Amino acid sequence: MTGTGQKDSQRWRGFQIIDACLAPGGVPLPRLAARVGQTPFFAYDRALISQRVADLRKHLPDDVALNYAVKANPMPALVQHLAGLVDGFDLASAGEMMTALDTTMPAERISFAGPGKTRDELTRAVAAGITVNVESERELETLSEIGRKAGQRLRVAIRVNPDFELRGSGMRMGGGAKQFGIDAERVPQVLRWIGQHDFEFLGFHIFSGSQGLNAAAITEAQSKTIDLAIELSAHAPSPVRKLNIGGGFGIPYFDVDVALDLAAVGQGLAEHMPRVRAKLPKAQVMVELGRYIVGEAGVYVCRVVDRKESRGQVFLITDGGLHHQLAASGNFGQVLRRNYPVSIGNRIGQAADETANVVGCLCTPLDLLASKMDLPHAVVGDFVVIFQSGAYGLTASPTAFLSHPHPSEVLV
Amino acid sequence: MTGTGQKDSQRWRGFQIIDACLAPGGVPLPRLAARVGQTPFFAYDRALISQRVADLRKHLPDDVALNYAVKANPMPALVQHLAGLVDGFDLASAGEMMTALDTTMPAERISFAGPGKTRDELTRAVAAGITVNVESERELETLSEIGRKAGQRLRVAIRVNPDFELRGSGMRMGGGAKQFGIDAERVPQVLRWIGQHDFEFLGFHIFSGSQGLNAAAITEAQSKTIDLAIELSAHAPSPVRKLNIGGGFGIPYFDVDVALDLAAVGQGLAEHMPRVRAKLPKAQVMVELGRYIVGEAGVYVCRVVDRKESRGQVFLITDGGLHHQLAASGNFGQVLRRNYPVSIGNRIGQAADETANVVGCLCTPLDLLASKMDLPHAVVGDFVVIFQSGAYGLTASPTAFLSHPHPSEVLV
Repeated sequence: MTGTGQKDSQRWRGFQIIDACLAPGGVPLPRLAARVGQTPFFAYDRALISQRVADLRKHLPDDVALNYAVKANPMPALVQHLAGLVDGFDLASAGEMMTALDTTMPAERISFAGPGKTRDELTRAVAAGITVNVESERELETLSEIGRKAGQRLRVAIRVNPDFELRGSGMRMGGGAKQFGIDAERVPQVLRWIGQHDFEFLGFHIFSGSQGLNAAAITEAQSKTIDLAIELSAHAPSPVRKLNIGGGFGIPYFDVDVALDLAAVGQGLAEHMPRVRAKLPKAQVMVELGRYIVGEAGVYVCRVVDRKESRGQVFLITDGGLHHQLAASGNFGQVLRRNYPVSIGNRIGQAADETANVVGCLCTPLDLLASKMDLPHAVVGDFVVIFQSGAYGLTASPTAFLSHPHPSEVLV
Repeated sequence: MTGTGQKDSQRWRGFQIIDACLAPGGVPLPRLAARVGQTPFFAYDRALISQRVADLRKHLPDDVALNYAVKANPMPALVQHLAGLVDGFDLASAGEMMTALDTTMPAERISFAGPGKTRDELTRAVAAGITVNVESERELETLSEIGRKAGQRLRVAIRVNPDFELRGSGMRMGGGAKQFGIDAERVPQVLRWIGQHDFEFLGFHIFSGSQGLNAAAITEAQSKTIDLAIELSAHAPSPVRKLNIGGGFGIPYFDVDVALDLAAVGQGLAEHMPRVRAKLPKAQVMVELGRYIVGEAGVYVCRVVDRKESRGQVFLITDGGLHHQLAASGNFGQVLRRNYPVSIGNRIGQAADETANVVGCLCTPLDLLASKMDLPHAVVGDFVVIFQSGAYGLTASPTAFLSHPHPSEVLV
């Protein structure tokens, strides 16, 4: 139980198992919890992140760059780790920019997208020398003013709101009326405006959806994205040098989900790349991924504090809850609640001999981490592990809810 | 616009209006924003909170005590304000306990409920001398150990999981199998155990639901609660001195909601109080309210950063979003998204002459603060106000999501 025991070569959901304990980064949970000094915590497995990047490199065409979307998990150590693995960072706030600039990633490979960028954020982005993916004419005008004052030529790309969306995606980021980007049909006039002002035009950012598990749908969206970029490039003041075709690669959260066929996605993109090379010869195509790179490499770990039977049902009450892992409780934008994968972290491989509800310590019935799940019999002190917690976990949760202690994070 | 103009006697949703500007605590928004130094922020109106407590005092029977559930809004200044107005505080964590003990509220009037209390939390509660509402046999045993070590006689009440629930409540806290409290049918044996150990038994905490808008349903639940307490008291080792009958008083969030008839609730409870006086003559009945006391006294204020038309729809893009007011985006446990009441805070009373979507600055389509709402034409720099934001606003939101700056809070 303490990591001194015999090593077990088995793995569970990618993670090492040592003496029936999950071992993120090879450190069994009891020892990891002792090192962290508390539960709950999030643990991210460095090797699993590296492995995922290697898988992407293997399957994506060689001339496609791989960017990390910092919003998925902005833990500084993790972003530092990724700085040595990916080709660029994409940001959604000035806060993320601070983290990104503290790494070795050059400013030229960092871009900043997001609606409603304030003048302060734009000013900081200009000072940092990163690329701004502009989302509106107002942003362009503000940037032009900032550039004039700073005597700097600004690097801009256009975030385009396409007229299509990623079929079957968990979240639709494009198509129809949207707050994101500039409607595709307005882009030609915006490109003209850019040409008349002192900008360094880099290219396009076209994002049509996220959390897609269907390779064919992703390939279709990528193909349409490439077509749209080629079409819009006719109006550009200079050749397209950057083409961010977005991400959209999902991970399986629920029993009903089937993992994305990455080889098929890579093959699909390879088939469309010749069109880019022919029509946009100077363009670096980049894929922007967040969740897909880190989501499956992270677990949320809490401890059983109480075990209770109420009217025939077993409740494992933990020191964690939805204040740390909101999405796992089914309360963050989900219409239908389903269980995330959950295990008793020090009883991996033991037979599931009871049906239990795993709940958090909050005074609300929403705080349900696993509903009627078959699990090995757990006792007070055992570890509850929620998988698929590496992305949009801690930062997407209401940590101040009910004023409980803040969870820790560890990259191991 | 700066608070120096002529005063307007009109009010909007309880708040003063000065020169067409919402004026929480009598300070018009432009001036309040200048004082706070940023948007977004939450503003809580001290007078509206006091008024709500006065309304409760007017309608509830004189011998019913009024407790504040700190979890609804733990802002220290607000809790300080309420310390002078209510009869007690109810807590859900040791973090809330720190805030409560920093006020003038005596420890004897503070109680701590919640599933999964850790040994550390229980030890701190014992040291503070507050009442623990025990939720399980394990908590009782742990408390007994802590008490022996501390040489202290412990004040405990039993949180009962009733066998009924508040009809039509937004959240069901009792009835069926639950992580909350001890099942009513097991309470007699637990009372026996308490009598055999060195505890000061205070009474019961019975909570059957929250966010109820139907006075008759609340009265019915209160009546059943009183019956259950009387029934259980037969097994108690000493007379019941505290009977916390919970809260459940809701506030209207949506167009379709009708405000709770507080007079009817007060009258209903008055009709059942003689039964308490006869059967539990030493019992102080208390109502525990959070949302109802502070929810309508708070607004969330952000600013329009961009204004954009996309494929025929208007988008007002703000510097706020779901990372500060998650429930208003419809993503915190809601099945069906409805608009919270939203106004342009410096155009109160102006005709609604366009239909707009109000969105936040996050890179996610979930970040929708108002969908297709009729509003006066707003421009960049205008204030967007979300009402009904005094409870479960800031602390129930994922503030670290996308690493944007933290919002401020002001009690005014």
